[in-house]
Formats: sequence, structure tokens, C-alpha cells
Amino acid sequence: MSSLGTVGLIGTGLIGGSMALDIRACHLADTLLGYDKKADNAAAAQRLGIVDRIVSYEELVAESDLILLSIPASAAAALLPDILDRIGACVSASAGMDAVRPVASDCDCVRPVVLDVCSVKQPIVDAVRNHPARGRFVAGHPMSGTEYSGPQAARQGLFEGKVGIVCDAQDSDADALACVEALYEALGMRLVKMSAEQHDIHTAYVSHLSHVISFSLALTVLDKEKDDKHIFDLASGGFSSTARLAKSNADMWVPIFESNRENLLPVIDAYSDYLSRFRSAIASADGPKLRSLIETANRIQKIIQ
Amino acid sequence: MSSLGTVGLIGTGLIGGSMALDIRACHLADTLLGYDKKADNAAAAQRLGIVDRIVSYEELVAESDLILLSIPASAAAALLPDILDRIGACVSASAGMDAVRPVASDCDCVRPVVLDVCSVKQPIVDAVRNHPARGRFVAGHPMSGTEYSGPQAARQGLFEGKVGIVCDAQDSDADALACVEALYEALGMRLVKMSAEQHDIHTAYVSHLSHVISFSLALTVLDKEKDDKHIFDLASGGFSSTARLAKSNADMWVPIFESNRENLLPVIDAYSDYLSRFRSAIASADGPKLRSLIETANRIQKIIQ
Repeated sequence: MSSLGTVGLIGTGLIGGSMALDIRACHLADTLLGYDKKADNAAAAQRLGIVDRIVSYEELVAESDLILLSIPASAAAALLPDILDRIGACVSASAGMDAVRPVASDCDCVRPVVLDVCSVKQPIVDAVRNHPARGRFVAGHPMSGTEYSGPQAARQGLFEGKVGIVCDAQDSDADALACVEALYEALGMRLVKMSAEQHDIHTAYVSHLSHVISFSLALTVLDKEKDDKHIFDLASGGFSSTARLAKSNADMWVPIFESNRENLLPVIDAYSDYLSRFRSAIASADGPKLRSLIETANRIQKIIQ
Repeated sequence: MSSLGTVGLIGTGLIGGSMALDIRACHLADTLLGYDKKADNAAAAQRLGIVDRIVSYEELVAESDLILLSIPASAAAALLPDILDRIGACVSASAGMDAVRPVASDCDCVRPVVLDVCSVKQPIVDAVRNHPARGRFVAGHPMSGTEYSGPQAARQGLFEGKVGIVCDAQDSDADALACVEALYEALGMRLVKMSAEQHDIHTAYVSHLSHVISFSLALTVLDKEKDDKHIFDLASGGFSSTARLAKSNADMWVPIFESNRENLLPVIDAYSDYLSRFRSAIASADGPKLRSLIETANRIQKIIQ
């Protein structure tokens, strides 16, 4: 793809940082700018070569051709209208679109584009639904991550072979969408489009529920460990796998749980219902019922490798 | 270590098969015999080089110096008394211990040893508590595995760096124990001793609960998938990690859940209680409470890598 020009990271953590590393490795940007509310993260991002320069929020929005908004969902929803205000003001103050800002000569993005990467989409699209510069925003979600956070956790190739979601694509300008699609492709992602509403229901099932489960498992086992320090001698790979997500960061997950609670609560209830069925079958040592539940659950192997 | 002589596998699946592959790779046995109730598994174990010969159950018990009992927990508890009967009869019929059977000249094990590898221990030790040949049996549990089963799933190095449990060690003969300890060490395991009772409580927390959780998660998501085939576009690494154990085999897990239900039910209840607390905090969008739960759960990172 042609150059993205100046790419600005608002939030220099795992997702934004990993995208920046790929963008740099693929020579997709002329310059990478960074802004992070946490000074430690900003300094680490520069030290780790994730960004070329740390700038103020205002400078970043003014100078970037592509803004990657990779901060917790609630903060993103709160900040996005201001970003679009600044972009809108900048555009309307100019004589013509091409004069808005310096743009790399071969850049696909003739006006600044904002891409967010949050795990909940409805509150974010709602926050700018009627904004005059809504078209410059693409509601994205690269479906990759780890249980770690911060610029130290960023790594190249995190998105290779993964799905890159774009929500409510009809509300983004064609060139903004094309810019994000080209970025996803360059990072090795397969584009999937859906509504923000559908996205938030699906992620409640396949991502947010897994985190609730994993946090609850960790709490249960840590509680037991208070009485018995030896319990972890027995923790094998199965436990590590199921409890891995319990390492995930509160800054990211509290806003996700809060903002997707309407979708998540019925999913937790559906899960609790299966858990109760399992418990009943165990309590009554009902072998045929347990076998039936397990063999039905085994069908998951056609889905996950 | 010196040779184990003839090693016989009753059950040629993941755990027994993987131990056999390591035993062969380390040249610890003169001969590896196999018996499996499932003819397909037996044939595969021979084809894959896990065993040298497939024999009858009676031949295997009569000819082996070390018997690895690696079949589901309920089957192991049912079969073990008969194995010890045969060993006992063989010993008592002989003039002296050394004359019982041919033994490799440098073998540590002067009489046949039986090691089981089941994930539940109380029903198995109970089944032979007062058996005259109890001392020849070692109640083991190598804390490793995968979500796959059968001889095809067996692999070398599965136990490297893992914990190898021995339960109720005081009920095993010193030489039988020494034989198993040497085997664990050769396979790269760190020996941990505990009572069968403690083992079954601990595994309920760190293994069996994880499986209940994972099966229930898979059932929940598969149920949703009936209505929406696109949900798995969104399934990322977090979901795969949490749902991985749901691929596990019913033949193995139905007996575990049945036979460890007294320990497992209160653990499921403790977990359900944490799940409810999480649900309440989400329902009321109680940010500080969610943060507190998540940050407490994060302490799991000191335990699992």
C-alpha cells in the first residue's frame, strides 16, 4: 500500500503499540507520533521505538494523517467527539480539502482518518452518530490481543492471520474506509464488516464472557490458596489456559464490562444455566447426561484449533 | 536410572502412550508391551512405535516388571484389585521373591510394580486399601496432559518440567516407590507427595473445575452459534484459550466428574458465588467493585506464567 503519511497513536499500549510496530516494519508511515496520558507509557513507547516522537494531544491530532485511538472504551467514547471537532474545524477552516494539512504525496488518505480499536463499539459510534465529521471515523476492532498490556507488551505480527472488524462501515467516508482496509490487509488481517450492535453481542459471547469466567476462576482458586499454599503444585496446563485471561488489565476491562453490560448480562445468565446443568449432572452422578453434555461441548473442536 | 525391564501399558492413550515414548527414548525398558480394550488404539499404539507388542491383559500382567495403568479412573479402580490379585498369586506361588519372574539384571524393581496415572485418587486407593499386594501399587498422577486423547495424541517430552504426584506413599513398598520416583525423574518431573484426599480436593480446584467451566462455555457459545454462524469470526485467542479444554474426551472426564463429585460440587459452588459477584458488579456498573475483583484476580499472574 502507499504511505499512510504521519500516523499518530493516542494510547501507546498493547494494541496501538503492536500496530505501530507493524506499520514501521512495513514502512507504511513517514512518521509515528505518540500521545499517552500515562507519561511512563509514553516514555517507554519512545524508548522501544514504537513512536518517533511524543507530542501533546493537540499536536498529534493536528499533525496526523491517520489517528489510531487505542485507549479504554469509555475514554475513547469520551475523547472521540473532540478529535472529530478538531478535524472538522480544521477542514471547515480551510479553502479546500487538499489544503487542510501536509499529506505524503502518495498517501491514500487525503484527509485525516481516525480508527479506534476498542472491544465495545456501540457507545463509541453513538458518541459521534450525528457529528459532522463522522465520515472521517472508522469503528474498528482488530481481533487479537494478549493478557498483557502497555507498550512493553506490544509486538510485531500480533494481527497476522486474525480478523479485522469494521462496524457500521456505511457511516465512514469511502476513502477513510479504504485506508483502514488497506492497513488491515498490510497487517495480515481478514476484513469482516458488521453492525456495532451485532459486534457487541458477539464479543459478549466469545470474548467478554471468557474474561468473566477466567477472572472468577482465578478468584476461586486464589481464595482456596489462602488456606493451602500447595494447591499450585497441581496447577497444570489446563488451569493455566483457562485462567490466563485473569491476568488482564482492569483499566481496559472495567469499561468494557460497564459499557457492554446490556449484552453481557444475558450471556452470563445463559452460561450460568449450562453451569447449573453440569452441576446437576455431577451431583446425581448422571453418566449419560454428563456424556451428552461433554460430547456436545466437544463440537467446539470444529471451531477452534 | 537402570532398566525397568519389561514395561506393560494397560491403556495406550495420551498419558500411557506419552510415558512409553519417553521410556523408549531414554532406553529405560527392554520391552514395551501394550494392552488396550479398544482394538483400534492397540493397533495404532503398535503402528506408532509406542509399544513393541500387543498382548492379552493376562499376558501383560504376567510378563511386566512395571505396569502403567492408564485408563479412565472408574475402570482403573475396577481393574486394579484383579491386577494385584494376579501379582499376589504369582508372588505367593513362588518359592522366593527373586524367582517370581525374569527381571532385567540391573533393574531396580525386583517385583512387579503397578503405577496408575489417574486424575482422581481416592476411589483407586480405596479399591485396594486392604489388598495383600497393596505395596506393589503406587498411586500416581503426572500433572500433564492435553485436550486430545488416544495413542495418536501421545508425544515425547509431555512431562518435562511438570509435577509428578505420588499419593499415600506410605502404603507403597519402598522399592516400588523408588522405581516410580526414578521414572518420574527420568521423565523430567518434580516429585510431590500428598494424601489421596488432599490430591482430590486440589485437582477439583485446579483441574476439574477448569474443565467444567470450559465445557459450559463451549455449550453456551455453540448454542448461540445455532442462530448465528458468524459468531466465530470474532473468536480470538482469548476464547480459544478458555474453551480449549472443552475438546476433552468424555471417556476420561465422565468418570472423573462422577468419582470426585464430593470434592467438586463445593468448588463449583464457590466458583458460582464469584461469578454471581462479578455479575452483580457488572449489572450495577459498579466500577470500583469490578476493579477490585479484577485486580484481586490479577494476582494469579504470580502463579501461572
